[in-house]
Amino acid sequence: MTRLVSQRLPEKMRTDRAALDALLDATVLAHIGLVVDGRATVFPTGFARVGDELVIHGSTGSRWMRALVEQETTVTVTRLDGIVVARSTFESSMHYRSAMIFGRFEPASEERKAPLLDAYADRVIPGRTREVRPPTRKELAASAVLVLPIEQWSLRVSDRWPDDEPDDLVGDAWAGVVRFDSVTASIEGAPDLRPGIPIPPSVQQLAAHPERLG
Amino acid sequence: MTRLVSQRLPEKMRTDRAALDALLDATVLAHIGLVVDGRATVFPTGFARVGDELVIHGSTGSRWMRALVEQETTVTVTRLDGIVVARSTFESSMHYRSAMIFGRFEPASEERKAPLLDAYADRVIPGRTREVRPPTRKELAASAVLVLPIEQWSLRVSDRWPDDEPDDLVGDAWAGVVRFDSVTASIEGAPDLRPGIPIPPSVQQLAAHPERLG
Repeated sequence: MTRLVSQRLPEKMRTDRAALDALLDATVLAHIGLVVDGRATVFPTGFARVGDELVIHGSTGSRWMRALVEQETTVTVTRLDGIVVARSTFESSMHYRSAMIFGRFEPASEERKAPLLDAYADRVIPGRTREVRPPTRKELAASAVLVLPIEQWSLRVSDRWPDDEPDDLVGDAWAGVVRFDSVTASIEGAPDLRPGIPIPPSVQQLAAHPERLG
Repeated sequence: MTRLVSQRLPEKMRTDRAALDALLDATVLAHIGLVVDGRATVFPTGFARVGDELVIHGSTGSRWMRALVEQETTVTVTRLDGIVVARSTFESSMHYRSAMIFGRFEPASEERKAPLLDAYADRVIPGRTREVRPPTRKELAASAVLVLPIEQWSLRVSDRWPDDEPDDLVGDAWAGVVRFDSVTASIEGAPDLRPGIPIPPSVQQLAAHPERLG
């Protein structure tokens, strides 16, 4: 099963940017490669697509982010959409979409930090920046914001039915797809939430559409 | 937001193997690092934990898997469990669990291939191997099966409430967590499914508990 990457059939490659953006906008989780002591280390991180760039951020003290701007890297974003149940385990596989974006992250200029962090926040929780105070100067100074232009990339999509052998097609085994449809979410107020503060629209929307986040 | 990895607070580290296994058994998607032309490339792949090993497989012709056994690597497995909505965007973050397993994959011996592929198949779709024919000799010969012992690893868990500044605590902004609770799934028979073949128990179970797969 799971010939996720191993079976690199040409028909799985997609070249349309709209399909890439649809995937990048369907999750906030990326995995980023960094060579550390000769080993390809894989860091999970939140990200946001903002126009033609990928944006990540962290503390200015973050060692892995400081190392990241010194290297060419790969950002891989994957969604698992379902399981392909074939008439044999050999032909069974997965429905997935996976993008690799290649390049080198650069630190955002000081002027771009605030708008990029706002765009990031509103990508994760749309409308949130209208409900809370803006970042302070101190917070901005403590934030590292890195951007990677979306220029070099590849996209693979596996969304086919099982492709069973003729001998298996006439047999009694079931075949099909189990699709992952949607995620449900629940809202919990913090223990130190002051009484009387209602759940804001941004959070209600987030919980209503958690599938946007993966 | 999303100080996923960047904010490497000590209290996020976990050392209990049971917590690691719980994460490894909560998804079938891993991201694996491979240095290609000096760049840390990140490959998505299906995987299964089988006892004290991680198992991946693919075609014997898979170039990335052939390259993989020549290097030390990192396998990163991440689940995004929710969004931490703080009273400022700066303090907002995510609930996640992420494991890194370090080491070098080795090809499974010929004798181990069939049992490992069965274990893999039954991890993704429990009970499926009892419903379908076993792999043929030809299929086994075409399969590369790689194993990585779970020996060197780290686990980070972020599951806390927002940690807001005193000035924000007394303000009017809401704070809490939006938790991703469960995935729903639907079953679709293949277009070439012969009439009268019922959905088998393994597939019914899979669709009833898609959260097992991530």
